[in-house]
Amino acid sequence: MASVNKSYLDLVDACDSFPYSDASDPNPYAQFYAFYLPSDPRPHGFLLPATVAAMPWTDEFTVDHDLKTITLNGSQDLSTIAFTHLIDTALSCNTFKLLHGEHSEPYPIIGARGIPVSLERYAAPLFGLVSRGAHLTVYTYARGGGDGEGEKEMKIWVPRRSKHLFTYPNCLDTTVAGGVTAGEGPGECVVREAGEEASLDEGFVRSNAKSVGVLSYISHRDAPGDSEKGLFSPELIYCFDLEVAPDVVCKQCDDEVKEFYLMGVQEVKDALRRGEFKTNSACVMIDFFIRHGLLTAEEEKDYAEIVARLHRRLPFPTSPDQ
Amino acid sequence: MASVNKSYLDLVDACDSFPYSDASDPNPYAQFYAFYLPSDPRPHGFLLPATVAAMPWTDEFTVDHDLKTITLNGSQDLSTIAFTHLIDTALSCNTFKLLHGEHSEPYPIIGARGIPVSLERYAAPLFGLVSRGAHLTVYTYARGGGDGEGEKEMKIWVPRRSKHLFTYPNCLDTTVAGGVTAGEGPGECVVREAGEEASLDEGFVRSNAKSVGVLSYISHRDAPGDSEKGLFSPELIYCFDLEVAPDVVCKQCDDEVKEFYLMGVQEVKDALRRGEFKTNSACVMIDFFIRHGLLTAEEEKDYAEIVARLHRRLPFPTSPDQ
Repeated sequence: MASVNKSYLDLVDACDSFPYSDASDPNPYAQFYAFYLPSDPRPHGFLLPATVAAMPWTDEFTVDHDLKTITLNGSQDLSTIAFTHLIDTALSCNTFKLLHGEHSEPYPIIGARGIPVSLERYAAPLFGLVSRGAHLTVYTYARGGGDGEGEKEMKIWVPRRSKHLFTYPNCLDTTVAGGVTAGEGPGECVVREAGEEASLDEGFVRSNAKSVGVLSYISHRDAPGDSEKGLFSPELIYCFDLEVAPDVVCKQCDDEVKEFYLMGVQEVKDALRRGEFKTNSACVMIDFFIRHGLLTAEEEKDYAEIVARLHRRLPFPTSPDQ
Repeated sequence: MASVNKSYLDLVDACDSFPYSDASDPNPYAQFYAFYLPSDPRPHGFLLPATVAAMPWTDEFTVDHDLKTITLNGSQDLSTIAFTHLIDTALSCNTFKLLHGEHSEPYPIIGARGIPVSLERYAAPLFGLVSRGAHLTVYTYARGGGDGEGEKEMKIWVPRRSKHLFTYPNCLDTTVAGGVTAGEGPGECVVREAGEEASLDEGFVRSNAKSVGVLSYISHRDAPGDSEKGLFSPELIYCFDLEVAPDVVCKQCDDEVKEFYLMGVQEVKDALRRGEFKTNSACVMIDFFIRHGLLTAEEEKDYAEIVARLHRRLPFPTSPDQ
């Protein structure tokens, strides 16, 4: 195998992979069908023509092939039910491989005005809706040297994902990460996942995890199946830091994590360059390095480009109750 | 005077004020002339038609009114000299009020390939080039209560600008801020300015100031004079944090600062809402609050929009030596 040497910008490119408009392609969104909620003129998602063609649309949705729009009919309080009908139908017909033939937890449409609207997690990428994750980076300061002597060095708790996972098997990951489900905030998500994934005490995490920002990017995702290549996938990753004492240990307690390592900053940087991290977790780690002064404009020529690309403005509303 | 109650998004809007492309205006850059360096197909700036009409162009520049381009002729090693000739001429003709009738320090064109190119600081906005600043937020943890009892509370050193300054007289500001000049890095800039503006020891700042990211935005600036309304002004603000002991005192030592205050977080938030901060310093403070967990997604509905807007991708190269 050829040795891999990815730059930080390469790693960001792999995550924020949907093209930006430029002179050669002023509207890279032109290929998509825009998705609209009832009585709301703002699009909330983009669907591929192949997805629109394959979807077993119910009467609750209007498809306009001239305008390239999909509109949810009726009133917004019935929208979640309309999604349930549609996804039940798609599941029973086994239309999309992305659905894995099974139901998943509800994800909200975060920019929906007023009454909340949700649909199943696995289905959200088919509609190109904004998905939300929360990542917690747990770190400590340990003394180098065998006898507890020497200067204190930052160490980061890094898990390796199980090899049986659908996505990114065996990759390195953020200490704790999960999807923010309907009705919960990013902070609650992190507390829940820290207990489930890393055996950390929920009360301790609730009191000490620090909210430090949100990454945003648009992935151009290929899922298996002809109707699922080139999905438009806008994502928000809410980031949290948690400094712990050297005696706190992260350990797996579900089957999503294979094992945890306590890695030095240079070890993490080396693993990033070798492409060992899950795509968006690499971005979370780069953002962590930037915020902690471990990656600076003086050493990284693409610093400004990297920081802007980690915080892409999404083409859909991201504020509830606008 | 009516009471002011600005939201954080209002404050970001005031700084990142140039429109984004949308359905009603897919190319908001269409009005501008694009500026090109020799042998480089990438634009580095945008000029207003009124600026192009008023500028006393020398033979070293080619103006194409059909393509709406300005191209620097010759080779890049002569570009800095060509700018000097042009700005000398504009100064002697008193063409632009923005130049204040005086010379200023050299600013680099940061995306220039190979040989560095610079022009005077006051002239850069006329060409719509990317300008760079560096801001340092100095904070401490002080005990509340009169006797040094009580819980430790974060306090931030906030200066008030002198009333005689050209820009933002009397406004509150970041502890230390300045423009990054040709040949220096953002870190060196902050060390230099911390000594000049806040009487902080340069060695201490060099060892302890932490690089924490870079903000990017595009202001739509009105300067005095008919040819200077609606300037395209893309900016990078490199951000640094410095935690100090409670006995460290920031005090003015030049005439740009009127006085320093040690303000609690809520005091700073109140002053932001009243619109008392310089426009881009308000954004630096909002970013500081976000990174320190003092402003979260749970309390701020526009959190994701604010963070993305604080890190706008600029339409020009920002990496040296591409």
